[in-house]
Amino acid sequence: MAAAVYDAVVLFGDSLTQMGWNTGGFGAQLASVYTRKLDVLNRGLSGYNTKWALPILQKCLAAGPKTRLIVIWFGANDSTILPSIQHVPLDAFIANLKEMVRLIHEADSSTKIVLMTPPPINDEQRAESRDALAPVDRTFDNTEAYAKAVAQTGQELGVAVVDVWSAFWRIAGEEQGGLKGYLTDGLHLTSAGYEVVYDALLGTIRASLSELDPEKMVEVFARWETLG
Amino acid sequence: MAAAVYDAVVLFGDSLTQMGWNTGGFGAQLASVYTRKLDVLNRGLSGYNTKWALPILQKCLAAGPKTRLIVIWFGANDSTILPSIQHVPLDAFIANLKEMVRLIHEADSSTKIVLMTPPPINDEQRAESRDALAPVDRTFDNTEAYAKAVAQTGQELGVAVVDVWSAFWRIAGEEQGGLKGYLTDGLHLTSAGYEVVYDALLGTIRASLSELDPEKMVEVFARWETLG
Repeated sequence: MAAAVYDAVVLFGDSLTQMGWNTGGFGAQLASVYTRKLDVLNRGLSGYNTKWALPILQKCLAAGPKTRLIVIWFGANDSTILPSIQHVPLDAFIANLKEMVRLIHEADSSTKIVLMTPPPINDEQRAESRDALAPVDRTFDNTEAYAKAVAQTGQELGVAVVDVWSAFWRIAGEEQGGLKGYLTDGLHLTSAGYEVVYDALLGTIRASLSELDPEKMVEVFARWETLG
Repeated sequence: MAAAVYDAVVLFGDSLTQMGWNTGGFGAQLASVYTRKLDVLNRGLSGYNTKWALPILQKCLAAGPKTRLIVIWFGANDSTILPSIQHVPLDAFIANLKEMVRLIHEADSSTKIVLMTPPPINDEQRAESRDALAPVDRTFDNTEAYAKAVAQTGQELGVAVVDVWSAFWRIAGEEQGGLKGYLTDGLHLTSAGYEVVYDALLGTIRASLSELDPEKMVEVFARWETLG
């Protein structure tokens, strides 16, 4: 099979990525802004942590079109509280992120990488959205620790980071109550929440990966006005 | 390059397809409903007619992932009025559609095809949206003729047809004025217009291509609940 007509941006993550093609989602918005320039591929896997996602990443890297950018967005499930089977210890989470970056560069050293931090949890909203008898599955504090680890890992590896956690925290006035309009269930995002993610990611692409700035990229196929 | 992790649905057409990833667009909606099952690829080329699109189709067929479905949606530009350089005579338009179907089946006889008819033009809305001195570029009557030709060609070839033209005309109460809420400029679609296209296309997939019914398809990768 020859190379696809468009290179790709791969959004690789959990349900926050998988749901990114819902109305107002950041994946659909990226696909729109990269039209005729790059395909934006949904590689979101609801409920997955980095341990389960690693073998999938290897499958994705062994296949598909040339990938110009991979956005890695995990932590929301790795940071669940035991006895959740989704829980991955912080040190293993960091090691898995580093292994993802290594695998991507091993497959194609020209592929750019962005690491995104998980958004903050709204503990009250989270509790309200769950069965009163269900044990707490995620906490603001624990997810914050995983978010900080993603940011530190990116710095350590010299990989661009989109600090989604801090973007939400800032916009919420550094109060959990301020997150309400951006989260549906204390964890997942409203379209307003996805707008925050889209703006932060595109801002980072423009600032740090300007060759992938959609406004600076040339369309693959000629504009109709030049034909005839 | 190995096969991509997901097979593809390719939306091949003009600006009506290209803009299908805008908020509420049918492409973004399809991508959402096919999440973890198929990639939905934007192969829309604003301003293109079937003559200019044919060589692009050949490039697309020579590359990319296994394509389960190609939706062919042209006519809005082929049906422009001379001296528009976009104009393609009706008989040449029909021949080009038949050649597209032939090329697709030659590349992979298992690829399903859907032909879509262009939506009706609202002459008054179209005139209002253009420079008063600009010559008329499209008319309700001419686009209707091209829409009928698409439907007839599909019947002749035994290819599924989504009669977008008739769906809009029905919903408009068979009056051009009734089209206003569905068209932005007498030609392109509002999100309400794209909803009509999405519903009609998904209805045809469910009825005539049930193996591609998103609800009946199995996700490629295991659900997280089965892991651990």
